[in-house]
Amino acid sequence: MTESAPETEEMATRLESRMERFREAARVKKVDAVVVSSMSNILYLANFRASAGILVVGIADESLKLLVDFRYQDAARRLIDSQVAPRGLELVDVPGSYEEALAGVLHRIPATGIGVESDHMTVRQWQWLDSHTRADLIPLTGLVEGLRIIKDQGELTTLRRAGKLLSDLVPGVFSLVDRKRREVEVAQEIDRLVIQAGFDRVAFETIVASGPNSALPHAHPTGRELRDGDLVILDFGGVLDGYCVDISRTVSVGEVSAECRRLYFAVDEAQLAALDSVSSGVKAEEVDGVARTVLDRHGLGDAFGHSTGHGLGLDVHELPRVGRARAGVKPVTLECGMVFTIEPGVYVPGLGGVRIEDDVVVTEAGAEILTPGERGLVAV
Amino acid sequence: MTESAPETEEMATRLESRMERFREAARVKKVDAVVVSSMSNILYLANFRASAGILVVGIADESLKLLVDFRYQDAARRLIDSQVAPRGLELVDVPGSYEEALAGVLHRIPATGIGVESDHMTVRQWQWLDSHTRADLIPLTGLVEGLRIIKDQGELTTLRRAGKLLSDLVPGVFSLVDRKRREVEVAQEIDRLVIQAGFDRVAFETIVASGPNSALPHAHPTGRELRDGDLVILDFGGVLDGYCVDISRTVSVGEVSAECRRLYFAVDEAQLAALDSVSSGVKAEEVDGVARTVLDRHGLGDAFGHSTGHGLGLDVHELPRVGRARAGVKPVTLECGMVFTIEPGVYVPGLGGVRIEDDVVVTEAGAEILTPGERGLVAV
Repeated sequence: MTESAPETEEMATRLESRMERFREAARVKKVDAVVVSSMSNILYLANFRASAGILVVGIADESLKLLVDFRYQDAARRLIDSQVAPRGLELVDVPGSYEEALAGVLHRIPATGIGVESDHMTVRQWQWLDSHTRADLIPLTGLVEGLRIIKDQGELTTLRRAGKLLSDLVPGVFSLVDRKRREVEVAQEIDRLVIQAGFDRVAFETIVASGPNSALPHAHPTGRELRDGDLVILDFGGVLDGYCVDISRTVSVGEVSAECRRLYFAVDEAQLAALDSVSSGVKAEEVDGVARTVLDRHGLGDAFGHSTGHGLGLDVHELPRVGRARAGVKPVTLECGMVFTIEPGVYVPGLGGVRIEDDVVVTEAGAEILTPGERGLVAV
Repeated sequence: MTESAPETEEMATRLESRMERFREAARVKKVDAVVVSSMSNILYLANFRASAGILVVGIADESLKLLVDFRYQDAARRLIDSQVAPRGLELVDVPGSYEEALAGVLHRIPATGIGVESDHMTVRQWQWLDSHTRADLIPLTGLVEGLRIIKDQGELTTLRRAGKLLSDLVPGVFSLVDRKRREVEVAQEIDRLVIQAGFDRVAFETIVASGPNSALPHAHPTGRELRDGDLVILDFGGVLDGYCVDISRTVSVGEVSAECRRLYFAVDEAQLAALDSVSSGVKAEEVDGVARTVLDRHGLGDAFGHSTGHGLGLDVHELPRVGRARAGVKPVTLECGMVFTIEPGVYVPGLGGVRIEDDVVVTEAGAEILTPGERGLVAV
C-alpha cells in the first residue's frame, strides 16, 4: 500500500464528514435513501464532476451508488482509483435512459421512503419514477445545500485563492476599457484574462454594459462602442477547482456628469456600509437593509431592484441569499464560513447604472473581503 | 404610423404562426392556459431573451402575459415597443418570487385546467403551485419543442449563416494546434476566434482533448501539453442570433500510429455514410444505425457509446435525437426543415479517440451540410 499525500487524506476526511452529516440530515427526514440529481450536489458529496449522473445515497444500508453513462465511465473509474472518492462508492452503468437505470437501482434497495431533490427533479422525472417504483417518493428541499452554506477549510482555501486571483485582474481589466472599443470586445478580452490567470473557466457570461446599457441590470454585451461620458459596469467571474468567484466594478470613460458621479458615490457608500455590517449572528436581510437604507437616503431606493448579494461556492448563485425577507422563506442568520457577494447597484434609465461587488467570507472578526484591491471610479 | 422594415414584418408573421400552432396543440390537450417556463420556449414564442421569466398563454381567452422581474423589465418594454413581440403581449411585474406572481396571474384567468411544462418545472414549483391555485395542473411534454423541431425560413437563414461562419474557422483552428501548447490555451484561442467571427457567444465549453484525453468523450480541456503522436479532438460551437451550431474535427500532432489512423478512417467512413442516409421520411434511428453498422464492421461498435447526433436550434441539444430506439420514446421520422448534428465517435482507453461532426438540415434533396469545408485528418 502506498502512502497518500496529505491533501488526499484531507479531502478524503472532508468527504467522509460531508457524507456523515448528509446521512444525519436525511435520517431526520425519515427516508431510507436519497436520489441526488443536482450535479453540484453530486460534486460536493462524491467529488465527481460531470454534466450528467445520479448519486443514490442509502441511509440505512450505507450504500452509495453513482449512475453514469458511457461518456463519464472512464472519469468515474479514475475517481474511484484516486482515493479521493467517498468510501464504498460503486459505479452503475447507464446504457439507456437515466430514469430506467435509476428505477432498477431503487428496486434493489430495501426502501419504503425515497427522498428526491425537489428543486432539481422535473415534474416529468418525478411522475415517471413514481409510476416505476414501489417506494414512496418524498420531496426534499435544500438537504445538501444546507451543508454547502458553511464552507470547510479546504473550500475556504480555494475561495481565498480564487478571490485574490480575480481581484488582481481588476487593473488589467480597467486598462481594456477605452473609447471606440465595443462592449463585446472588452468582454472577450476579460474572458481571456480570466483564463490566463489560471481559472478553469469563466463563471458566467461576462457583463460589459456601457452608457444607457449600464441601466439594464442584466445586459448582454452588445456591439455598442464606448464613448466619453459613459459609465461602464464590468461584472465577471471565474471558476477555480470548481469554486466560483464574482466581482463587479464601475468605471467612467473620460469625465462623466455630476449626476453619474452622484450615483457612483451613493452605491460606493451603500456597499461599504453593507460590508461593514456583515458579522456572525446578524441576519442576511439586515445586511440587505443596510445597503437599501443608504440608497433610500440618496433618493435611489427604487433604482435598486435586486438583492444585495448571493452565496458563492460550487454554484455561482447559492445560499445564502442576502436580500429582503420573503414570505415563506426561512431567514438566514450569518455564520462563520458563509461566503457571499455584496453588490448593491442602481439603474436609472436614460442616465446609466452603477454596481460594485465584492465577495466576502464571514469570520470571527466580521467580513473578510476575498476580492480586495482597486475599486474605481477610475476615469479611463 | 411608421412603415416597418420587411424583416420586422416577417418576424411578426412568424411569431403569429408559432402562437397559432401552439394554441392549436394546447387545445388538443384540453387546457385553458399554459405556463411556459423554459427560457428557450419563451424566446421561441415571444421573442424575449432572458435568464428568468414566465409566459402564460391563455388558450380560450387568447391572453398572453409575460412575467418578468426588475432586471428584465426595461428589455421587455423595449420588446413590446419594437413591433416584433407577439400580438397582445402584456407585461406583469414580479416584485417578489415568481411563484407568487404566477399564482396571482392564474387566479385571474378563468381556467379549470392549466398546462405546465413537465420537462421544465421542478417538483418544488409544481407542489407550491398546486397548493396555491384552484385549477387543475396538467403536465405537458414537448408542446413547444414539437413545433421547434421544424425550422422556419428565418431560422434556416440564421442556421445556414451560423454553420458557414463556424466551419470557415476550421483552418484557423487547425493552425492553433501545435506541440507544447496546452489544451486549455488552444480552447481559449478557439473561443476567441468564435467571438471574433461574430458569434454572440460560444455554444458550450469548448473541448480540446489530446492523446489519452481524447478517449474521454466529454473531456474538459486540461493543462496537458500536446505532443507528437497525439490525436486531438476539437469540438466547439457558437450562438448566432440565438441559434446554436456545433462542429468537431480530429487532427493529429505529427505522425500518429497506424492504429490511430485506423480509428480515424473508420469514423470518417461512418460519418459520411450517416450523412448520406439522411433523407425526409427516414427514421432518425436508422441514420444512427448506419453509423453504428460501419463501426461494428470495423470492430469498433463498443467504442461508440453515444448517439449519432442531436437537434440544434435555440438549444444546443434539442429534438430530434439521432440515436438508438428507446423504450417509451416515440421514434422520430425525419422531415424537411429538421436540423441536427451527425457526429459518430470512437474512444479507446489508452489509445485515443476520434469524433467528426457536421450540422445538417433535411431538404427535399437529402442532407444539406451546414458546416462544409476542411475535415482533417491533418497532421500539424
